[in-house]
Amino acid sequence: MTAEIICVGTELLLGDIVNTNARFLSRELAELGISVLHQHVVGDNAGRLRALVTAARARSELLVFSGGLGPTADDLTRETVAEAFGVPLAFDEVQWQHIVDFFARTGRAPTPNNRKQAFVPAPGGPSCALPNAHGTAPGVWLEDAAGHCAALMPGVPREMEAMWREQVRPRLEQRQSCTIRSRTLRVLGGESSIASKAAPLFESANPTAAIYCKVGESEIRVTARAETAAAAEAMCDAYLEKFRAVLGDDAYDVDVPGLAWTVVRVLKEKGLHAATAESCTGGLAAQLLTEAPGASDVFGYGFVTYAEAAKRQLLSVQDDILKRYTVYSGPVAVAMARGAAQLSGAELAVGITGIAGPGGALPGKPVGTVYVAGFDARSGEAWLYRLALGGYGERPIIRTRAALYALDLLRRMALGLPAPDARHLAPEAPFAEMDI
Amino acid sequence: MTAEIICVGTELLLGDIVNTNARFLSRELAELGISVLHQHVVGDNAGRLRALVTAARARSELLVFSGGLGPTADDLTRETVAEAFGVPLAFDEVQWQHIVDFFARTGRAPTPNNRKQAFVPAPGGPSCALPNAHGTAPGVWLEDAAGHCAALMPGVPREMEAMWREQVRPRLEQRQSCTIRSRTLRVLGGESSIASKAAPLFESANPTAAIYCKVGESEIRVTARAETAAAAEAMCDAYLEKFRAVLGDDAYDVDVPGLAWTVVRVLKEKGLHAATAESCTGGLAAQLLTEAPGASDVFGYGFVTYAEAAKRQLLSVQDDILKRYTVYSGPVAVAMARGAAQLSGAELAVGITGIAGPGGALPGKPVGTVYVAGFDARSGEAWLYRLALGGYGERPIIRTRAALYALDLLRRMALGLPAPDARHLAPEAPFAEMDI
Repeated sequence: MTAEIICVGTELLLGDIVNTNARFLSRELAELGISVLHQHVVGDNAGRLRALVTAARARSELLVFSGGLGPTADDLTRETVAEAFGVPLAFDEVQWQHIVDFFARTGRAPTPNNRKQAFVPAPGGPSCALPNAHGTAPGVWLEDAAGHCAALMPGVPREMEAMWREQVRPRLEQRQSCTIRSRTLRVLGGESSIASKAAPLFESANPTAAIYCKVGESEIRVTARAETAAAAEAMCDAYLEKFRAVLGDDAYDVDVPGLAWTVVRVLKEKGLHAATAESCTGGLAAQLLTEAPGASDVFGYGFVTYAEAAKRQLLSVQDDILKRYTVYSGPVAVAMARGAAQLSGAELAVGITGIAGPGGALPGKPVGTVYVAGFDARSGEAWLYRLALGGYGERPIIRTRAALYALDLLRRMALGLPAPDARHLAPEAPFAEMDI
Repeated sequence: MTAEIICVGTELLLGDIVNTNARFLSRELAELGISVLHQHVVGDNAGRLRALVTAARARSELLVFSGGLGPTADDLTRETVAEAFGVPLAFDEVQWQHIVDFFARTGRAPTPNNRKQAFVPAPGGPSCALPNAHGTAPGVWLEDAAGHCAALMPGVPREMEAMWREQVRPRLEQRQSCTIRSRTLRVLGGESSIASKAAPLFESANPTAAIYCKVGESEIRVTARAETAAAAEAMCDAYLEKFRAVLGDDAYDVDVPGLAWTVVRVLKEKGLHAATAESCTGGLAAQLLTEAPGASDVFGYGFVTYAEAAKRQLLSVQDDILKRYTVYSGPVAVAMARGAAQLSGAELAVGITGIAGPGGALPGKPVGTVYVAGFDARSGEAWLYRLALGGYGERPIIRTRAALYALDLLRRMALGLPAPDARHLAPEAPFAEMDI
């Protein structure tokens, strides 16, 4: 099946907003095995919309719309597309009642204009209204005699995505005689390092696997088509195991919003607590960790020791260490982590110090040199990274990558996993050993 | 003039990436007074691209392309559009040398495929190559006998935006017989509060003013068209004054990346220092502040006291205050700010405590109740907000809004500006007065 995505809205043509709907719908259609030939954006203009719909119908079997379903005279997607499909619209009491109820729930009353939104295909045929659980505008499903079809959905992403998942995608799954399920594996590291280890796994037709890069980590989205949801899920899970087998500990979790969720879960499971001591990341590691609800069960103390005096005063970093090794050094990162653990009573702590830039480079320590230490108060052991993050981008990227390394050290220490690229330091290791 | 934007790339049709180029180009064209009739996305397919270009040329005088200029056989935007415009392409030694040099700078050698990228319109006519300062692919400017034109630019946003600003926009300014300049005023508060105060200012034709909402603040982009850059800039500046006159202190700066940059600049100018004490924001205020380079001149100490014990132990928040008023209370926020100032020696400090959700609501204190206190150690005075942020969204939104209030309190205390919605507390004010 071939499809075109048509987003209607003058605000898109003026550049007021980014078209995230087109991306969402493209990805979903690709996963359904439907080829998207075009994405279009058109304003609230009946003539241009009609011409576009005519051309698109001549090329493609499925048209997916978002936007233009509002109550004003400008909003003419419903009327224009229904006319092109030869489907008459009629006022529908059930849809109208839904609109009235929705307004009532938010303490308002509908305007006469809103009646327009209750004009939908008459019941009984293959064309029908698509109720909107999150807003006033019902969507519309249209089918013509030739079996070509159109899905008209609202422009608000939350409303559109819910309508897509609950009503449009199931219809398309039925047409494609399949059910689709996806799972997202989260992996530390960039696209090139993952591709070098797992390249053949991205060649599969079913399940498919696609990689999406984020700062310091990547998402691998595995999508399977099968006759039943259970079968598709089983295919996803089996395929995820293949990724895990080649990616090892870097693959840290499935279907979570981020590393912090995993760290908080693991610490809870192990009955452990974490503390953070940050210099160049300025509180980012603590902030990321506390993005996960429930972080308060495992995290109580974070120190942002941006000044040298703060490192000495709060974390008891010795003055001669700061002088001998400079503030951007392994010994200071470890001393910060030790100080944070001691002060907080947490079993695990991390220390971060380095040069986020743009200024501050030292001889032999360019911008992006960051030391990340993990300290395990139970054993007295420590792990230390010297990171060279300057090649990855500027200040925000350097800070985010450094904070992710710190969170990952907490995960590795809690799970007893190795940290292959870090130096392992025995209890009471002398500071000279940390000067890497 | 009317225009269409055509983005070429299979990765867009598959939903691998969001089309930010279309948004950027739409906004820029709107500012030039050029009406965008359509945005299109098409894959690397010669037939569909040709059909699209033919249809778009029949409707619009200007076609703006991004993507499809790469070295592989798939990349056929250049050839297809030049053919449609009737402009022959020829191998160009100067462009080729630029490509070779670019590879050399990054320590690589061009492949034979890259020669394809050096095929551009022959010099002498109105059509020409557009050198690419940030990548290998030169862009192309095409004009036909009827004066219709096309700009072909790379798909990588950084390369496209530079080529647009340096080469394409000046050509269009010349055609439009004007020069365009923009300034962005940053304002605390949402679209509706700004619109209620400044609505008529958004009705102007030149300068134009557009509002873009972000979490807890908005950007007002003022764009002026004039014969010279100096005149356009003067028009922008004069118009910004009109916004400032109605928006007052909420309009905090012009052309800065965010509030932290302003706070750091103001603290530096005043020779002041800031400290942060955070509970529900978990380090976000410190992290935002240190996003601005040079923050180390004004910020040395941040405390993330997520646990009650941390508030007592580090910030000397008294146990009976925690017990009497609960940890989510005005007295605790003020005590946190006082403790942070005392420990750090900073003249100004902020304390943040509240309920970011999703759990943790107390009777009379729903999710989104956040107390933000500012303490001025020079005078002993304090300011205290009780914020109800639950209606604005979920955990990340609540945290970001609370952190912005804290940063803004630092700005207001440093500049001696009032904080109209905050309770003002005299030195040594009793805790009972903070129980709001």
